[in-house]
Formats: sequence, C-alpha cells, structure tokens
Amino acid sequence: MARLIGIGVGPGDPELITLKAARLLKEALVIAYPAPMQGEGLARSIVGDLIPAGRVEIPLRMEMSLDRDSANAAYDAGAVEIAKHLEEGRDVAVLCEGDPLLFGSFIYLMERLGDRFDVQVVPGISSPMASAAAALMPLAVQDEAVLLIPASRSEEELERLIAGTQTACLFKVGRHLDKIRRVLLRLNRLDKARYVERASQAHEQCLTLDQAIAKGGVYFAMVLVRS
Amino acid sequence: MARLIGIGVGPGDPELITLKAARLLKEALVIAYPAPMQGEGLARSIVGDLIPAGRVEIPLRMEMSLDRDSANAAYDAGAVEIAKHLEEGRDVAVLCEGDPLLFGSFIYLMERLGDRFDVQVVPGISSPMASAAAALMPLAVQDEAVLLIPASRSEEELERLIAGTQTACLFKVGRHLDKIRRVLLRLNRLDKARYVERASQAHEQCLTLDQAIAKGGVYFAMVLVRS
Repeated sequence: MARLIGIGVGPGDPELITLKAARLLKEALVIAYPAPMQGEGLARSIVGDLIPAGRVEIPLRMEMSLDRDSANAAYDAGAVEIAKHLEEGRDVAVLCEGDPLLFGSFIYLMERLGDRFDVQVVPGISSPMASAAAALMPLAVQDEAVLLIPASRSEEELERLIAGTQTACLFKVGRHLDKIRRVLLRLNRLDKARYVERASQAHEQCLTLDQAIAKGGVYFAMVLVRS
Repeated sequence: MARLIGIGVGPGDPELITLKAARLLKEALVIAYPAPMQGEGLARSIVGDLIPAGRVEIPLRMEMSLDRDSANAAYDAGAVEIAKHLEEGRDVAVLCEGDPLLFGSFIYLMERLGDRFDVQVVPGISSPMASAAAALMPLAVQDEAVLLIPASRSEEELERLIAGTQTACLFKVGRHLDKIRRVLLRLNRLDKARYVERASQAHEQCLTLDQAIAKGGVYFAMVLVRS
C-alpha cells in the first residue's frame, strides 16, 4: 500500500537532512509541502537540489500568519489531492522544516489521512538542536530537564514553566522579545539567554537578548536559556 | 586551527545521520567516541560503514553505569589525548548518539577543551523525535509545550513537571517504569503513554506502559505521553 511519508528536512542547511530523507525524496513520485501564497517556501527550498525533475508537486498554499482558517483550508484541499495519489498507489512525501511531529504541519495531514493510509515519519533535526549547536550551549546533562515552548504563551505561563526547568527553548520568538526579557529578568536568567536567528542557514545570528531587541526579532528565531 | 567537532549520529538507524555528519566523518583524521570497557559501543557501531580505514580512533572507555568517577576519568584522559591531535592540527570528530548537546557526552569534552580550541557541533536526530516517529505521536502543535526529562527525577518532580506541559518525553526509563506508571495514573494520562524501545533500530518496539512493565524495560527506552 502506498505510504504518506512525513520527511523532516531540518532547520535550513541542506546538509542537515538525513541520508534516509534524501533517499526517500529521490524515490517518492509525489511531493507535498506547506508554502506561502507566492513562492516555494523554506521546506521546498532546503531540498531543491535533491528533487529529481518530473515529480508531481503539491504546494499547500496558505497565508503565513496566525490565520488557522487559511491553514485548515489548505490542509483540507491538500489532503484530498494527496489521497488521490495514495489511492492510485503512489507514495507521497510531505516536506517539513525541522521535525514533522514537533510543531510540524505534517501533523495536520496525518490527522486527516492517517486512518485510511499507511503513515511513515522520518525524523528531522529540529530548531532546539540546531540553535544549541549555533550557540554552543548544552541543553541538558545528567538529570536536567528541558522545556520546549512557543513564545506565544502568556507571560505568567512562561515564567512558571521556565522556572521549573533547567533549560528552556522558546520557539517563534519574533514579536515576543520584550515579554521574554521581562520573564527572564524576574527569573534572574537574562544573562544566560541566547537569541538564535536562522540557525544553520547562511545568515545565522547568535545574539544576547538585548542585542536581539535592539535589532528586532524575526519569526523563525529561538531563545535558549539555561539556569 | 584544528576543530573539535561534536557529531550527532542519531538514534541508531545508520540512515538517520545527516549528510553533514557523513561528510565530516569521512574528512576527520581522528575519531573519538564513548565506549564500554569492552567493545565499540552504540555511537561507533552506527557509523561503522562510514569511517574510512586507517583513521586514528580514541575510544573513551567507561563503566556503563551511573558511576560518574569512571566517566570523568575517561573524559579527563580522553581530553588529553584529543588535545594532542588538535595541537598538531588534526580535526577530531567526537561521535555522539542522538544529539551532542542533549544529554550528550560531547558536553563534557567541550567543557574540558572548549576554551583552548575551536568547537563545532553537528546536530543529530534525538530520541524524542525518533520515538515520536516510531509511535506516530505528535509532540506538539500550536502553542503546546514539550518537556524532555530523565526518568531518574523524583516521583514528586515528575508529577509536577509533567502536569504543567502537554507532552512529556521521559528519557532512560528502564528501571523507572513503576514510578512512571504511578505518576501517569494520578495525572490520568496512563492510556496516552507509549513506551518506545530502541527507536529506529532493528528491534524497535512500541508498547503501552503496562506491556512494557510486563516485559521489563531497557535503559535506552523512552516514554512519551500526551495530555
């Protein structure tokens, strides 16, 4: 039976995909990926050199905003199109930045198609690991705990959850840097924080939080903080 | 200047290393890795087919137990040997199961050598992602938080920290399954838990917690639980 394959393509450096992802990409006849309304998007651009000519491509076009309606409509329509290929026996590879199951859009396709088709997931390098590599910051040793949390959470929740763990990796920090700064100042961890933008990519930057605030944050950036 | 390179070799499947890890392994003249007192250990075995003949190999031999003295002695002696090669201009690649900075032994070498030599880290696929792929379990969507925590933590700490997050990934669960079961029963999450043993490897198993307790847990296993 044909498989719906979620393929983690990593944080941006085309060399940070796995041998398995590269092999399955070459084999899959149909390739789907989230994309903005115009252009190919990050996931497709990471693996551009690995996709053989003549593949069927299904861009799942959605507004790159917090608008869930646009995203859900794209997943609904994409799932219908993907199901046709699967029914006709063709594997469909779905590209995902980072890892498919950690904040990955693949989850929404698995929800829509997982009860009818075989599903396989190829894990990918996720941004906490890529950002830690950029900052040369240990995430955890021994019995330490690590928290992965979107920066969109409330100031109170961030403070409570970060206080309870040794290391926190805050996702999608762009608009939330001032809030994060207040939380870390109260927790006395501001000097332990590193802002990492475009980890593993050509314009990677690793800054203190105050440097990042002065410059302005971007959406695909992460703050790492250790106690 | 020669570089100390931490290379994540992933969770066990030799195909789950990155193109970058494979390339740097071929280039490095000296390769170090943690190893038991006898044999080559998991990290070395994952990449056995990728290491060219004639490389200098430095196994960091230590008791595979909770004995920190044995491990520290191995890192101390290994750092001295590694430093000699770096001083003579040869890159040293240090193999790490999973990711080098998430519970990775590379952290201890970075602590000992990072102030004197250039350090580079190649992130690797870590067990939470490999286990989630095995269980086909989403780790997080939207604004959900994920906790990565060693199962060695106290019962009270596990309960408090798991209660506060949507998904928990418990590391090294082998001897701790009964404790984990009590915690998850109290949190009403027992039926949401999956035990994953040897994720991505030949004898991968994905079980309920009660199946795992009946069978007996192993050290390199993980429990994933979603709320």
